[in-house]
Amino acid sequence: MTALAVRYTGARTLAAGVAETPPPGAGEVELAPAFVGICGTDLHIFHGSMDNRVTTPAVLGHEMSGRITRVGPGVTGWQPGEAVTVMPLSWDGDCPACTAGHRHICHRLNFIGIDSPGAMQQRWIVPAATLVRLPESLALERAALVEPTAVAVHDVSRAAVADGERVVVVGGGPIGVLIAVVARSRGADVRLVELSEHRRSLAARMGLSTWNPVVDDVPGLAAEWTGGAGADVSFEVSGAAAGISTAVDVLAVRGRLCLVAIHPQPREVNLHRFFWRELTLVGARLYERADFERAVALVADGTIPADLLISKVVPLAQAASAFDILEKGGDVMKILVECA
Amino acid sequence: MTALAVRYTGARTLAAGVAETPPPGAGEVELAPAFVGICGTDLHIFHGSMDNRVTTPAVLGHEMSGRITRVGPGVTGWQPGEAVTVMPLSWDGDCPACTAGHRHICHRLNFIGIDSPGAMQQRWIVPAATLVRLPESLALERAALVEPTAVAVHDVSRAAVADGERVVVVGGGPIGVLIAVVARSRGADVRLVELSEHRRSLAARMGLSTWNPVVDDVPGLAAEWTGGAGADVSFEVSGAAAGISTAVDVLAVRGRLCLVAIHPQPREVNLHRFFWRELTLVGARLYERADFERAVALVADGTIPADLLISKVVPLAQAASAFDILEKGGDVMKILVECA
Repeated sequence: MTALAVRYTGARTLAAGVAETPPPGAGEVELAPAFVGICGTDLHIFHGSMDNRVTTPAVLGHEMSGRITRVGPGVTGWQPGEAVTVMPLSWDGDCPACTAGHRHICHRLNFIGIDSPGAMQQRWIVPAATLVRLPESLALERAALVEPTAVAVHDVSRAAVADGERVVVVGGGPIGVLIAVVARSRGADVRLVELSEHRRSLAARMGLSTWNPVVDDVPGLAAEWTGGAGADVSFEVSGAAAGISTAVDVLAVRGRLCLVAIHPQPREVNLHRFFWRELTLVGARLYERADFERAVALVADGTIPADLLISKVVPLAQAASAFDILEKGGDVMKILVECA
Repeated sequence: MTALAVRYTGARTLAAGVAETPPPGAGEVELAPAFVGICGTDLHIFHGSMDNRVTTPAVLGHEMSGRITRVGPGVTGWQPGEAVTVMPLSWDGDCPACTAGHRHICHRLNFIGIDSPGAMQQRWIVPAATLVRLPESLALERAALVEPTAVAVHDVSRAAVADGERVVVVGGGPIGVLIAVVARSRGADVRLVELSEHRRSLAARMGLSTWNPVVDDVPGLAAEWTGGAGADVSFEVSGAAAGISTAVDVLAVRGRLCLVAIHPQPREVNLHRFFWRELTLVGARLYERADFERAVALVADGTIPADLLISKVVPLAQAASAFDILEKGGDVMKILVECA
């Protein structure tokens, strides 16, 4: 067949073109991606900021849903037509991180969609080991949110958020909102700190309470909210230097700060506060299999407000327009690319 | 009786003089301090760096051993003549930290010896609740090390150091060495990073392996030592900006950095590494009662190499000379003041 693929060829350039469709090899499956979400990392690549890591031309996309089209030799348990998503990680299995049981942080991790071809194409070959089954009742459009939801599930789990705890999420983009929703589903009381009025109003429609860091004294509000104690947990999801300060300043004695955002450059951190209040900072990256499976359940049972999170769906041939909208920082949350 | 007391009266000035000896009040005991250790915080006060917190004239000293001389009304379970040390903390009991069970981080903590009079005097009145019993078999000179040992026990406990783990301690002053020794007693394999040749050779006499950060590539050595994995735990005890970097760079995936040193100003921290390797930073401050009791046992059973740690003992009237020696950064570890 003739399959379409969208390829990143250099800063701010995506080219749609025809792709080869070889049969899947041993242990592989071929998928027909249905919907592919665009995330912050895809945008970084689009900006040209990751050209030292990405080999061009590169097919992007790692948040997806779709159906199996062909099954390679030796693959059992999977049939063409089945609805799936992909946990886009491939590890070597024998580095120190893998042998310690932390394969998602493999020293030589292959992140599929960054380090190898991604899902923004009509036919995509992946290792069968990456497949995660989707319930037939789950619309494929919503299922494209499973991967970012798995990130949020992992983050909430790393922070060990417990029932009744008070949580501040700094940054209300898709991951921040998903963290807030997942933490709430664990019984936490959540406040979301976000600059954009559009995102705050969207969060409010999801039933989340929000603070605006431009006009609100966020640490003061957190102290007032908690009877002077401070929050049990904060999540830094903004990527901004000010976000770090806020996430530190809102915490109670023995509070936990879960670091989610990528801060490429070193940041000034108030270490005295870590000492004085015996705070904990915990880094969180990606997800493990259990996070992904939990994410499928949360998207399928409606805990994740998919309709409010998905702002727009564009056809594969117009993927570049979606990147343009996101780059301009418009009033959007998640944009999906439809591949069918 | 006529009791001698040494008082801090302003930057770089200690004055010896006569002190009142009122009887202990309800719930209090009067002690005759025997030996008092000088710590980094005492030096900071001596430098004048904490004049905004300390009310002058101030009797310093919070690392001590001694005997009970008088018991105030309502105090039960304690007799004159008994050997004791003091856990120098007094909390309000009803702030958010106290009600959460973290009384040693009370929002209005009174640190005795900083916020109220300390042990560098021949008679000292403290709340009976602060007393910790010492075995009669333990020499009082050695027992003056219980308080800094309790710090180390708390730090090792906050980092959850386990048998067989590989630990890097950055900074080989008294607290760093004590952390190294306590971690070793838990079954950890330890490397101590220290600039001073004198301190490295003293640590070597305690059977500790050391690295010199001036000539050694410490992260490289840590990687080599651990088969490319990195250390399970690091302790930042240096207070230096470079110490933070080292403590981050030596860690394995999911490694824990225990922050012990006081960094008054914000520090640049490689947060990307915290994300990438899912590291944890955990702040540690002071100690809890169980840490103090464990410290008594470790000093009493000889786990703590007290003879190597105590460099010098000076009489109370000459306490100022000990501060001078420490301020010059000479080849000393712990100096004790003898009060008898």
